[in-house]
Amino acid sequence: MSAPLQNDIFIKALLSQPTPRTPVWMMRQAGRYLPEYRATRARAGSFMNLCMNPELACEVTLQPLARYPLDAAILFSDILTIPHAMGLGLEFEAGEGPKLARPVRTQADVERLPIPHAEAELAYVMKAVALIRRELNGRVPLIGFAGSPWTVGTYVVEGGSSKTFSHIKAMLYGQPALLHRLLQTLTQATIGYLNAQIESGAQAVMVFDTWGGVLTPRAYQEYSLAYMAQIVAGLTREKDGKRVPVILFTKNGGAFLPQMALTGADALGVDWTTDLSTARQRVGPRIALQGNLDPSVLYAPPSAIREEVRRVLDSFGQGHGHVFNLGHGIHPDVNPEHAGAMIDAVHELSPAYHPTLG
Amino acid sequence: MSAPLQNDIFIKALLSQPTPRTPVWMMRQAGRYLPEYRATRARAGSFMNLCMNPELACEVTLQPLARYPLDAAILFSDILTIPHAMGLGLEFEAGEGPKLARPVRTQADVERLPIPHAEAELAYVMKAVALIRRELNGRVPLIGFAGSPWTVGTYVVEGGSSKTFSHIKAMLYGQPALLHRLLQTLTQATIGYLNAQIESGAQAVMVFDTWGGVLTPRAYQEYSLAYMAQIVAGLTREKDGKRVPVILFTKNGGAFLPQMALTGADALGVDWTTDLSTARQRVGPRIALQGNLDPSVLYAPPSAIREEVRRVLDSFGQGHGHVFNLGHGIHPDVNPEHAGAMIDAVHELSPAYHPTLG
Repeated sequence: MSAPLQNDIFIKALLSQPTPRTPVWMMRQAGRYLPEYRATRARAGSFMNLCMNPELACEVTLQPLARYPLDAAILFSDILTIPHAMGLGLEFEAGEGPKLARPVRTQADVERLPIPHAEAELAYVMKAVALIRRELNGRVPLIGFAGSPWTVGTYVVEGGSSKTFSHIKAMLYGQPALLHRLLQTLTQATIGYLNAQIESGAQAVMVFDTWGGVLTPRAYQEYSLAYMAQIVAGLTREKDGKRVPVILFTKNGGAFLPQMALTGADALGVDWTTDLSTARQRVGPRIALQGNLDPSVLYAPPSAIREEVRRVLDSFGQGHGHVFNLGHGIHPDVNPEHAGAMIDAVHELSPAYHPTLG
Repeated sequence: MSAPLQNDIFIKALLSQPTPRTPVWMMRQAGRYLPEYRATRARAGSFMNLCMNPELACEVTLQPLARYPLDAAILFSDILTIPHAMGLGLEFEAGEGPKLARPVRTQADVERLPIPHAEAELAYVMKAVALIRRELNGRVPLIGFAGSPWTVGTYVVEGGSSKTFSHIKAMLYGQPALLHRLLQTLTQATIGYLNAQIESGAQAVMVFDTWGGVLTPRAYQEYSLAYMAQIVAGLTREKDGKRVPVILFTKNGGAFLPQMALTGADALGVDWTTDLSTARQRVGPRIALQGNLDPSVLYAPPSAIREEVRRVLDSFGQGHGHVFNLGHGIHPDVNPEHAGAMIDAVHELSPAYHPTLG
């Protein structure tokens, strides 16, 4: 039914299979650093309008692919679509980040939290996925995604972004059973949401745990990783006879990589504060790694960017199972030509790190 | 001349010597969570007025000691006194954090940067140190401090706080020699500044590397740790026949502890994302550890705080060389009684972790 995949090196690398070079994409590749994104965003009126309009979401998803030789597309959406669908009153205020009008803080709040139906309240996401797949027409695979329950939970409990996580940590240390109940609800919602994305056409999925790194090792295991492990176990792992790889990424989670590797994920995202050589030592040879150029390297001139790309490739070393990426989302004030310099450098330098096929 | 130290368990623990219980203090213990601090701060008019008035700085330094049985006082000041003394136009805008009117970004900017004379432009700090020592009258030791060159450098180059560190990272990756020159200037200034604090009466010193954790392992070694190592080597380590211990603390630096231990520092600060048992394995038995309760534990009820204090003590285990602290500064919205619950718990629970003295 769908067109066969013309470039599958991203999927192969996630499955630690041989590829002739290292595949590359960028977290937030469809985003504010691109003038064409800012133009579409302005037409949409608001960030949520952009997320909720499948045609516009498709348009911005494809924009970076028109500019750069990327090996994957990622659905344009937000990790807060689930709280939005739960009726918590999500708004994005200009320059302020997300705000939830009705944060979840009490037993009653948690108990009345509905699990959204992915094919109903979140149908706009599924329509965008299907539309992007059609428009991609097999050029590269499409990545679906969700936030981790802990990370989404921080916004749900705090009512927005936070530096101190005062409400959710008060709950974690003072009412752990209540927090577990909330995280379990978010986990159920996330499994349904990601499986619906896979059903609609996502060929790989990624779980973004942006805030797992603010936890103690013990709390990370109990309140973040345990729920990501449930998600990995609950996902559709094969569709149309093809493996659907899953990537887990905890920012500032370098120390947690060994436990993350035990979840059954196919690949782990690594930020720039952990070298890929160290990450490889921690997780062994059977799981792929994605990363990990410091996004701020893109502020430097192209010659320096090329050198830093080489360092990342060197750190992973010879072999398969590496997806090149930034260690976090591309910054909004980066020059798009510098992103291009990074991607070109991966294309040029990475074949030397891949043993000849066959 | 000065009164003998009545309570020296903080100094002893930093030197990994036996103590009957674990000493305790809190980063930012003189701060906004205390109503008496807010009252003095209001009288001072501005934050920098408070820092620059030795009597008021002394007053707020002593406030937490009047409330809690703490084992050390820490000079009330700021890591940006050096850029202020360099004439970079430091201002603290309400709710906005520090701003520098004249950020340092070009070769010419770096070349004209003066090294302040600690006994002249920073005489107000030395007066505060001497006054606090006199007022403490030997009750507990006084800690002096400075920011790490890298951390102070981020404010100097960015012109304030940053999330992306765009200017200093553009310099790091694009003009490394220029950044090294800036960091060398900051290092010279910091050595003079800390030695003057020691000369004026500081009995231990701590270097705060708040932003070292945003660097790759390689960049951390080259742009943060190398300069902290120079500082350790350049400090007066003995005064009036007493060892002056030095503590290095890199937030989010758990992975860097082994290299930090090689600097010759007496103790390393550890944030809550690394267990003390892990930290101990990484650095060996000859260096003391300071930390590491998640500051957000203080949002929980006292019974939960006590349990988390026990976990930190358990993680360090039996033995000497542990200074109890939060893993970062106390949050401004914490209930002071909760800080008291933490301190009381350390007093009550920690003797069991100390082998009986001879």
